[in-house]
Amino acid sequence: MSMTTDVPRTGFRWTMLFEEGDASMRDLLGGKGAGLAEMSRVGLPVPPGFTITTKACVAYMQSGRQFPDGLMDEVDVRMRAVEAKTGKRFGEAANPLLVSVRSGAKFSMPGMMDTVLNLGLNAQTLEGLIRLTGNERFGRDAYRRFVQMFGKIVLDIPGERFEHEIERIKARKRVRQDTDLDAGDLEALAATFKRIIKAERGVEFPEDPREQLRMAIQAVFDSWSGKRAVDYRTFHGIPHDLGTAVNVQTMVFGNMGADSATGVAFTRNPATGERVVYGEYLVNAQGEDVVAGIRTPKPIAELAREMPASYQEFLRVCEMLERHYRDVQDLEFTIERGRLWMLQTRTGKRTAQAAVKIAVDMAHEGLITREEALLRVEPGQIDQLLHPRFDQAAKDAATRRGQFLARGLNASPGAAVGVAVFDADTAEAWGKDGKAVILVRPETNPDDVHGMLNAKGILTSRGGATSHAAVVARGLGVPCVAGTEAIRVDPERRQFSVDGKVIRQGDYLSIDGGTGEVFAGQLPALEPRLEEQRELVELLGWADQTRRLGVWANADYPRDAARARGFGAEGIGLCRTEHMFFEEERLPVVRQMILSASEAQAAYDRVRAAEAALRQTPDDRQATAGLKEARRALKASPAVRRYESALAVLLRLQRRDFEGIFRAMDGLPVIIRLIDPPLHEFLPSHDSLLEEVSALRARIALIEGLPRYRPRRGQPTLERLRAQLRRREAELAAVTAMREANPMLGLRGIRLGLTYPAIIAMQVRAILEAACRVTKKGVRAIPEIMIPLVGHPNELRETHRTFSAVAREVLAREGVSVPYKFGTMIEIPRACFAAGEIAELAEFFSFGTNDLTQTIFGISRDDAEGKFLLQYVERGILPANPFQTLDHGGVGEAMRIAVERGRARRPDLEVGICGEHGGDPASVEFCHRLGLNYVSCSPYRVPVARLAAAQAALRERVAASRDV
Amino acid sequence: MSMTTDVPRTGFRWTMLFEEGDASMRDLLGGKGAGLAEMSRVGLPVPPGFTITTKACVAYMQSGRQFPDGLMDEVDVRMRAVEAKTGKRFGEAANPLLVSVRSGAKFSMPGMMDTVLNLGLNAQTLEGLIRLTGNERFGRDAYRRFVQMFGKIVLDIPGERFEHEIERIKARKRVRQDTDLDAGDLEALAATFKRIIKAERGVEFPEDPREQLRMAIQAVFDSWSGKRAVDYRTFHGIPHDLGTAVNVQTMVFGNMGADSATGVAFTRNPATGERVVYGEYLVNAQGEDVVAGIRTPKPIAELAREMPASYQEFLRVCEMLERHYRDVQDLEFTIERGRLWMLQTRTGKRTAQAAVKIAVDMAHEGLITREEALLRVEPGQIDQLLHPRFDQAAKDAATRRGQFLARGLNASPGAAVGVAVFDADTAEAWGKDGKAVILVRPETNPDDVHGMLNAKGILTSRGGATSHAAVVARGLGVPCVAGTEAIRVDPERRQFSVDGKVIRQGDYLSIDGGTGEVFAGQLPALEPRLEEQRELVELLGWADQTRRLGVWANADYPRDAARARGFGAEGIGLCRTEHMFFEEERLPVVRQMILSASEAQAAYDRVRAAEAALRQTPDDRQATAGLKEARRALKASPAVRRYESALAVLLRLQRRDFEGIFRAMDGLPVIIRLIDPPLHEFLPSHDSLLEEVSALRARIALIEGLPRYRPRRGQPTLERLRAQLRRREAELAAVTAMREANPMLGLRGIRLGLTYPAIIAMQVRAILEAACRVTKKGVRAIPEIMIPLVGHPNELRETHRTFSAVAREVLAREGVSVPYKFGTMIEIPRACFAAGEIAELAEFFSFGTNDLTQTIFGISRDDAEGKFLLQYVERGILPANPFQTLDHGGVGEAMRIAVERGRARRPDLEVGICGEHGGDPASVEFCHRLGLNYVSCSPYRVPVARLAAAQAALRERVAASRDV
Repeated sequence: MSMTTDVPRTGFRWTMLFEEGDASMRDLLGGKGAGLAEMSRVGLPVPPGFTITTKACVAYMQSGRQFPDGLMDEVDVRMRAVEAKTGKRFGEAANPLLVSVRSGAKFSMPGMMDTVLNLGLNAQTLEGLIRLTGNERFGRDAYRRFVQMFGKIVLDIPGERFEHEIERIKARKRVRQDTDLDAGDLEALAATFKRIIKAERGVEFPEDPREQLRMAIQAVFDSWSGKRAVDYRTFHGIPHDLGTAVNVQTMVFGNMGADSATGVAFTRNPATGERVVYGEYLVNAQGEDVVAGIRTPKPIAELAREMPASYQEFLRVCEMLERHYRDVQDLEFTIERGRLWMLQTRTGKRTAQAAVKIAVDMAHEGLITREEALLRVEPGQIDQLLHPRFDQAAKDAATRRGQFLARGLNASPGAAVGVAVFDADTAEAWGKDGKAVILVRPETNPDDVHGMLNAKGILTSRGGATSHAAVVARGLGVPCVAGTEAIRVDPERRQFSVDGKVIRQGDYLSIDGGTGEVFAGQLPALEPRLEEQRELVELLGWADQTRRLGVWANADYPRDAARARGFGAEGIGLCRTEHMFFEEERLPVVRQMILSASEAQAAYDRVRAAEAALRQTPDDRQATAGLKEARRALKASPAVRRYESALAVLLRLQRRDFEGIFRAMDGLPVIIRLIDPPLHEFLPSHDSLLEEVSALRARIALIEGLPRYRPRRGQPTLERLRAQLRRREAELAAVTAMREANPMLGLRGIRLGLTYPAIIAMQVRAILEAACRVTKKGVRAIPEIMIPLVGHPNELRETHRTFSAVAREVLAREGVSVPYKFGTMIEIPRACFAAGEIAELAEFFSFGTNDLTQTIFGISRDDAEGKFLLQYVERGILPANPFQTLDHGGVGEAMRIAVERGRARRPDLEVGICGEHGGDPASVEFCHRLGLNYVSCSPYRVPVARLAAAQAALRERVAASRDV
Repeated sequence: MSMTTDVPRTGFRWTMLFEEGDASMRDLLGGKGAGLAEMSRVGLPVPPGFTITTKACVAYMQSGRQFPDGLMDEVDVRMRAVEAKTGKRFGEAANPLLVSVRSGAKFSMPGMMDTVLNLGLNAQTLEGLIRLTGNERFGRDAYRRFVQMFGKIVLDIPGERFEHEIERIKARKRVRQDTDLDAGDLEALAATFKRIIKAERGVEFPEDPREQLRMAIQAVFDSWSGKRAVDYRTFHGIPHDLGTAVNVQTMVFGNMGADSATGVAFTRNPATGERVVYGEYLVNAQGEDVVAGIRTPKPIAELAREMPASYQEFLRVCEMLERHYRDVQDLEFTIERGRLWMLQTRTGKRTAQAAVKIAVDMAHEGLITREEALLRVEPGQIDQLLHPRFDQAAKDAATRRGQFLARGLNASPGAAVGVAVFDADTAEAWGKDGKAVILVRPETNPDDVHGMLNAKGILTSRGGATSHAAVVARGLGVPCVAGTEAIRVDPERRQFSVDGKVIRQGDYLSIDGGTGEVFAGQLPALEPRLEEQRELVELLGWADQTRRLGVWANADYPRDAARARGFGAEGIGLCRTEHMFFEEERLPVVRQMILSASEAQAAYDRVRAAEAALRQTPDDRQATAGLKEARRALKASPAVRRYESALAVLLRLQRRDFEGIFRAMDGLPVIIRLIDPPLHEFLPSHDSLLEEVSALRARIALIEGLPRYRPRRGQPTLERLRAQLRRREAELAAVTAMREANPMLGLRGIRLGLTYPAIIAMQVRAILEAACRVTKKGVRAIPEIMIPLVGHPNELRETHRTFSAVAREVLAREGVSVPYKFGTMIEIPRACFAAGEIAELAEFFSFGTNDLTQTIFGISRDDAEGKFLLQYVERGILPANPFQTLDHGGVGEAMRIAVERGRARRPDLEVGICGEHGGDPASVEFCHRLGLNYVSCSPYRVPVARLAAAQAALRERVAASRDV
């Protein structure tokens, strides 16, 4: 379709009249030129003109800033054509033709020369203009503007030199606005401007309109190579050899009196999508005046009353352009003495809500197909529609009132309003009382989860996008602003401060997790619901009919599962069992399990070793005695007792959790991941224990050195301090023993399962017992048990033994048949290479792309995002944050290897992704191309993924049809 | 060559006479049978016999424990043949043939049935034996032994039942040794044994020799399927369907009087390799007696005097067997009434020293080729020859004397003897005074390096094989035992304790870094030197002529580089610049650099941003002022001053370091890696600062609460405490800001270089200035500058800019030409995938397989080795510790991809490996197959790698010739 290097059809080499081109010629005519051409071509009222092509600019640059042969001759011929159409003559006083000269590259680009208006004016033509309009001030003002623009833009004289003169004359005349200057003032100003130009550039201001035109064209060409434009292209990866086009167009004037006007409009409401022309205009004004905000423009509807004929014509044009472009258009127009002129058309930007409504409406109108409708909405946009959000206007107003406090990381989207609380207990208590609270912490840890569960929003001063706060918040769908470094949180005094302002417990806060903004006070929040968004529901329905990729959700709790299902999830791709451990009443039991695990396991191992020894030497007296002793020790071990009783409690609790999830997902698969995080995550913080122990030691030492010590009221005795120290020292020792230099790469995932098989046996039991029980009550439970962090197939083999022993036993005892699967996360590079062998045992793979990205890059997300990763993205060292958008060159390659090898060994292998990328549109497309069965993402991103998956399928079809 | 499934050539299906087989038939005859066959075949005096093949055993198992058709008929025929050869008759009293029945599988295997001797004895044949030998006690003892062995091994009756009876009779007769029992006692014992068998098994002891033989054969077959044998095979991956052979052989007796003897010998000295028969014998004894240690055997040389004829014959046999097998043999022999019989021959195990000497000697003797000689020495063995080491006998003696204290991780090989010191300062002071010291710490950190540099050995109670102590020690070639969990180190009291024993500062310690053993006191250590080991030097010379792979060394200091060169290193593959930072006098400067880096960089960035802003809006007053202010702030910044002055000092120091290394490696390439570790490694420990701050706070708070406080003599005042707290708090804040959750995956390597370009610019400058300066003095410096931790090609691109700017400037200023290269570590999985793009800029790759293994497995070595990795290896979940031997399935695959893609883009890409695997023989072979240019390892492992590389080349040639 594109005509990049074609010569104009007419035989001209460097120029095209508007009506000779069309919308497809963006490469040659630039975006603006193509729009003007298309409008001209279909017969809309466009002021006549022509475009100097990008080819001319390229030739100019290649020849060392020489106009290509014949360019100016062509321009002259084109000007004659324009004169013929307008009946005006360029440079003649009688009926002077004035033109605008505008740059227009393929991509709009800041730093390029913008616009010179009124070109063609000089002493003679100015007189003609004044005579023709009968309006001297209009004429003088037009000339003043022209000289000023030409001086600044074409001759590159600092704009402030001219502004300064305007300020001087206003000061002298004691007026405040430019409009208060009269014709004489403006005439004087133009003369001053020309003197400045002479002084600065050493030449007279060009009086010859053709010379003005030549200089303006050259200035546009030169601006392509300006530093700012070059930097911009380098940064955005736009080739430097495209060149820019130049549009030369007849001036029309909306400021020629009460029958003239100028305005901008959208063919539909860009905020709501409503099918009604939306815009504003000013009578007797020029384009810049609408933007300048000196006078208040009127809504476009009023034009129906003021200029009914022009209005009707404009509506027809809108209708026509929309039909023509098959999309909402953003238009500029001018009415000159009752005649409508179209100056620009381009695709209109719109809000998420409008995008959805317009796409669905247009499909219903038959303007576009459903497939096109699906492609019209940016999936990332619709995320906004599913979270509570603040109105931008409300935020702006709050900012003006000084309520803006700080900006942190946008860690979990959505708007939240509530009172600040500074500890989890209060958050829970107040939250349960029905108060809206925002939990504010330096950072969160597992001890805080019960508070987070009861908070409307979370605000932290430390931690990145995968800090505990961020991950938990996203899982819960609670808005979260993390790593807000500007605020200083003082949990002990229950307050935080920022720039001298102090927010105390109970003060209202509003946080926007989508932007990272934090405000004092209550901002009005909008609470949208999917079922109320008719068009979105319809569009997603079309998406479901189109996509091949399944969309599942990550959900740890029944209520999340239910929400996910409401958003259209077709399964649970990741249910993390350990988040259930973090709940307040469970944490002590979990800690009991952890602190006894190692000793208990040693006791089990001793019995097993003794059994093995006896098998080796069947009658050996020592071996027999050894086994007896090992069994006795096992029975007598308090650690074993504590371990097993904790496991029994957790079995009951987890079974109940899973029953709830199976009920919520009745008939849909639920992938449950066995325990993953390092156990020390469940223990008290090492540092606070160390602080406490050090302080206690110092205190005791000092007291011991005192001649006498009598504790004051409420103060502990030395004995009590010593007892406290002993307790804390024991805790510290336990925590220290579990500490790891790099917990991310330590004893977690399947490694835990192999070290403490009883824990995962308990979990498998809880899952399958829950499945059996709900099955007996008529629920269709489809559990899939997932092993995390597998690297070597033997790890899975070993785990599979534990798994199948428990599974056989539970199912036999319960006497129900449950369709279950056994599978694994693929989140370690080694697992990708070993995927073939792994697939021998694993019935499904789920890519844990968070960890896979961390290991493929060798980057700890927590550490990197704060320290260097975002800087990498900013500096262009990485094209995108690989934790948000799947990295094709590394992570994607590893995934491809895993899919190939896994499917080669097990053709019906179910493969999905449960990392955060599952909700990122670009990553969803990549997963589609990789042939995954589903993506799994947080419940709120399920609609996003449904649409992205449909778009991926559509784009694939287009590509396939292109290849045929 | 192998004849796994062939039938015996003679038409027999299940058996072969010894002389019918040969050494190649291990599959069919088992190891023992093949040895006997070979000796028989070449005409050595082997007691006649035959082998029942593994095929018979397989058939037996497959048919549900039924002897295959015709097996016993064949056995009968074979026995006739043996009778014919010996002139004896099986089961006849006149001249009874007695046989031994032994199992013999392809691989020797514990848990298999071992041996039944004297089979064929019953009441009649026993009388015949007594008559023939004229020695009743001999006969009765032979019978007692037979019944006992048969009962225990064939009939599976617990051995203690028989032992118990022997003890009883000895008690009754009040004698202590079996030899004190007389013929009558032994007769009674045999009768008792038979009663036990009757009672236990309900059958009479078989009197029919043929039935005895049948039962013994069946017992051997059954033992193949015994639990212990099955477990062993499962563990070692030996197929379960091989089956075992059974050897039936005429009994000969070394205990028939003064003209009989039995012994074991090596054809050369297995300890030293000396070419002289080495062994021992006992006159009038049976084989078991030599082992039992009841009588002291005599050196084999004495046989020359005692039985000159037999001795000469034995020497001839030794000579012949060595020539025949072309290797040292380990022999068993018996002399029965003056006649020599050979009972076993197998390849003799030998020490490292002997292995080298024997291989080189044999090549000189023309017995084997040089290639064979190279293949005869296990590369891992020769490592022992290059470190000081303890004699095993000395260790055993020390253990008997109770000096053994504990066993830790064998972190850095070699023996060290010295006095214990518990802090680095003392270690340095005493070490510089010429004292041999062993530095004992709970664990080490950079603060300890100056002490480690001056210690003979290092002992820690915590940390794995890549703990700081282990890595630094290996780098320095200092013996180290790490993670010795049994000892409790108390640095404050300058002592450690283990099992109640206490070692104090100044007490002597001996540690063996090759085995992890720790002894109290001084053990004699042997100090070998390469040049003194003539044969080793010669062998390595042959290796150098054979290998294709280069062998380089990792060395951080000139003295290491010199040592590496002495060991034959052809370059430095890894010179870590940061270890130089750890030295005591530099650490303060390094800390100054680190603590000012972030603020200084921010000041630089602000100037750069202001410059950019001004370029965007060239005349903007605000932008101009902004730049001015940024420049002023930069100039005024104390952080910038501190940063730049620290960098200037380090530049001088590093330049001197590099000059030394270039001198040591004159004419050879030196790869210098720019700074890699996270900066906080250079700072004081967070935990100790936190302890100190907490203690100070508690102390101050308590003092403030006291009615009055007057510090005692030497105690600080409250003011001094407060000042101290402020200082420590500031330090703690700085350290905390740099803390990382997973430092291994954090801000290190090239990420540091991109964050603080001034640091790597300083390093590049130091390297190139050093190269230029030594070049001017006639040294040939070949620097290769290596960037660590590259993941994305853009990281390298960006760094290359800094690099080439500095390089151009330095070389231009110095006016010398230096051949330098720019390259990168490949240690991040993503770099393997992106190797093609990376090779566009990188002139060399060096695989950092330590980090690559960590990231490919997602395993932090420090955390894993202590917690689960060694258990993984023990349990067979991993075939080997991937940090010692390259993992082919994951890490190897990633390396293969990197080599392919890198070489595709840059065919002359120099590719090496500098991880610890570079010194592991199996990994060296893998690197050879991968086509790397060189391996780089610690200096002491250079000879190991030279030999391993030669072997890899040889094995490749063999494989290639096989394929042709």
